[in-house]
Amino acid sequence: MKPIKVGLLGLGTVGTGVVRIIEGHQEDLQRKTASAQISIEKILVQNLEKERTVYVNRDLLTDQAEDVIANSEIDIVIEVMGGVELARAYILEALERGKHVVTANKDLMALHGPEILAKAAEKGCDVFYEASVAGGIPIIRTLIDGFSSDRITKIMGIVNGTTNYILTKMSQEGAAYADVLKEAQDLGYAEADPTSDVEGLDAARKMTILSTLGFNSSVDLKDVEVKGISQVTKEDIAYGKQLGYEVKLLGIAESQDDHISVSVQPTMVKKSHPLSAVNGVFNAVYVYGEAVGETMFYGPGAGTMPTATSVVADLVAVIRNMQAGVSGREIFKPYKEKKLKTDEQISSKYFLLLHVDDKAGVLAKITQVFSQYDVSLESVLQHPNQHNPDAEIIIITHGANRASMNNVIAEFDRLDVIRSIKSVYRVEG
Amino acid sequence: MKPIKVGLLGLGTVGTGVVRIIEGHQEDLQRKTASAQISIEKILVQNLEKERTVYVNRDLLTDQAEDVIANSEIDIVIEVMGGVELARAYILEALERGKHVVTANKDLMALHGPEILAKAAEKGCDVFYEASVAGGIPIIRTLIDGFSSDRITKIMGIVNGTTNYILTKMSQEGAAYADVLKEAQDLGYAEADPTSDVEGLDAARKMTILSTLGFNSSVDLKDVEVKGISQVTKEDIAYGKQLGYEVKLLGIAESQDDHISVSVQPTMVKKSHPLSAVNGVFNAVYVYGEAVGETMFYGPGAGTMPTATSVVADLVAVIRNMQAGVSGREIFKPYKEKKLKTDEQISSKYFLLLHVDDKAGVLAKITQVFSQYDVSLESVLQHPNQHNPDAEIIIITHGANRASMNNVIAEFDRLDVIRSIKSVYRVEG
Repeated sequence: MKPIKVGLLGLGTVGTGVVRIIEGHQEDLQRKTASAQISIEKILVQNLEKERTVYVNRDLLTDQAEDVIANSEIDIVIEVMGGVELARAYILEALERGKHVVTANKDLMALHGPEILAKAAEKGCDVFYEASVAGGIPIIRTLIDGFSSDRITKIMGIVNGTTNYILTKMSQEGAAYADVLKEAQDLGYAEADPTSDVEGLDAARKMTILSTLGFNSSVDLKDVEVKGISQVTKEDIAYGKQLGYEVKLLGIAESQDDHISVSVQPTMVKKSHPLSAVNGVFNAVYVYGEAVGETMFYGPGAGTMPTATSVVADLVAVIRNMQAGVSGREIFKPYKEKKLKTDEQISSKYFLLLHVDDKAGVLAKITQVFSQYDVSLESVLQHPNQHNPDAEIIIITHGANRASMNNVIAEFDRLDVIRSIKSVYRVEG
Repeated sequence: MKPIKVGLLGLGTVGTGVVRIIEGHQEDLQRKTASAQISIEKILVQNLEKERTVYVNRDLLTDQAEDVIANSEIDIVIEVMGGVELARAYILEALERGKHVVTANKDLMALHGPEILAKAAEKGCDVFYEASVAGGIPIIRTLIDGFSSDRITKIMGIVNGTTNYILTKMSQEGAAYADVLKEAQDLGYAEADPTSDVEGLDAARKMTILSTLGFNSSVDLKDVEVKGISQVTKEDIAYGKQLGYEVKLLGIAESQDDHISVSVQPTMVKKSHPLSAVNGVFNAVYVYGEAVGETMFYGPGAGTMPTATSVVADLVAVIRNMQAGVSGREIFKPYKEKKLKTDEQISSKYFLLLHVDDKAGVLAKITQVFSQYDVSLESVLQHPNQHNPDAEIIIITHGANRASMNNVIAEFDRLDVIRSIKSVYRVEG
């Protein structure tokens, strides 16, 4: 048994955890992989002098990428540096040189996954990326292996911890978005520039990866419709609660008859649905399969040790494949042609909050518009607004296709009795 | 590519689903396994003439086990007949002849798992058994692959749908155990003889399998302490609810410093814990790993199609291994010596419901006993009983080791002011 030599690209939050697990669990890892030793050979860092929260022999550090990716001693490269262009170049170069790759990089895999997987297949190398979605939850292997026998028709994910933290706080404390965002920034749960999280881009990247795996079809990031949480008001959340819903930022991927839609948006989730109780920075992915039915996978979506758990589980898989001589055999290849749903094919329930003139006949005009576009209503709630002279109407529709709903909204814009369309949410559960 | 030929032992609930998936998802299964065709060659049934809910060519049926297990055409045997001794003999014989095996049989794997896995290893064959625990939830691969890098310290499972259905109904409707059991029997959710489910034996078998995998140590069924739900009263559930708990039949497996305890018992689960919201016939397994932290896996625990999903996912894994020429390499071997915890090492919170004399000084005597054995209390609730002249005292302790709690209970038995110890529950969450 020859020792397995690993190179790291990056020694930040995740890299630190990877070093801790490889060193702390060495004996178990050797047993599980039938290896002599799993040693870290080189670590690429930006700053050689920076103080580290994990002990690392100074000789292992380098600021030259070649010392890792062109190092003939190294069998496996673990990319935990983040960013897109450099990481892409390094990984392609490592694969070119026959090294296996483990990456935690969702941005990279969402944008360049097909290119990287094709290169791996060409070189007979493994690429695993479990940590790129939902941190410590092994959702990628679940989709590839656990549900290999099933036809998955729906994946709904709370896959961004920052926004789930913000929405949970807004719900539990009745607080406003801006206040909670600031608090989350102070606590380190949100970045100084929170755009990628709060506008749903991070979640969209993860849904690109999950829907590609779940539907066996190459979904592009640009296929994902994205709406973030910055417009969610505490009133929306309060009205949702009254009616038995929690607002969650959901990634929703659906496939019917091999036609796909993928979106990210704040969604009213019925309280009886298991996703509605996923709170704080936790992540969860709900998977519906034709045969298996409803399943949900819940756990920490980020953080040093949870994410490192997934990275090192991938490392174990790479080593097992090396030992068995089957590297590169499991490279995922989507085999279905991608067909996107049209607006007519996308159906869901909707929640609408309207401010209207407080006078007779208004509701009749509104319901007439719904009926004109064949949208039927599940419930209607009208009451005077406490803060201004308008009345408020809250409507939950039955399942309606999006083309019809777009027509309804357009008509409402023209309807003089409607002062404003305050909110429109998709409804699930 | 030569076609893959499969033999089935059994065509009952699960077998029917397996046939449906293999036939209905044929094209996807071929793509995912790079196989020419996956065909069912022979099916062992008890009654050749019985009417089936799935179409099967009459020529495929046999009532002679040899036609499957000694059939040189067959590569893979799927055992979905249930029972222990015959299934064991057939599987050992199939392995002896170099056939790979997929089984959904928890009883068999809990009782004879080591023997079967050893035979498989000896013959270079695969044995997979994902469907044996928690039906459609891919929890076995999650423990083996998803968390291969972590040290799992706790597994808590709602792994029996019948008892979870009964407890959910008792909780939601305030109904008594006997009434709900009868209703469950009428609906087909409970067997005519419900002993194995309601007394916790079924859950114990599943926990044997999960704890062996999670702790890498060969846990025996007799290592599992078992208590069922037949003594759970609607009063217990009502008091639990008042204090923010749901009663669930939990399998609990713990490992600290490589010392293990495994048990099944009705448990008070705090409402903030994700297991508390797992209702009806659903199953869920909560896994705590040192690095990953809290995770939970939720889905259908039984039923034709969910269970068949896991069986056929195993079939896909077997075929992939055959194609890669690595059959038998992943046979799980526990590598840690089993050390069981003593009562001093098993710690948890407890819930007690006592009926006591309704007079002064009683509470002082009771709390004195706790203090004598170093058990500290989290909360104490005393109020007059509506139905009889005793007073009721409900106590929730802080974490206490079981040896101490046993001493407390023994002392209570001798204490004249305590008329009866109505209930003692472990508390989690």
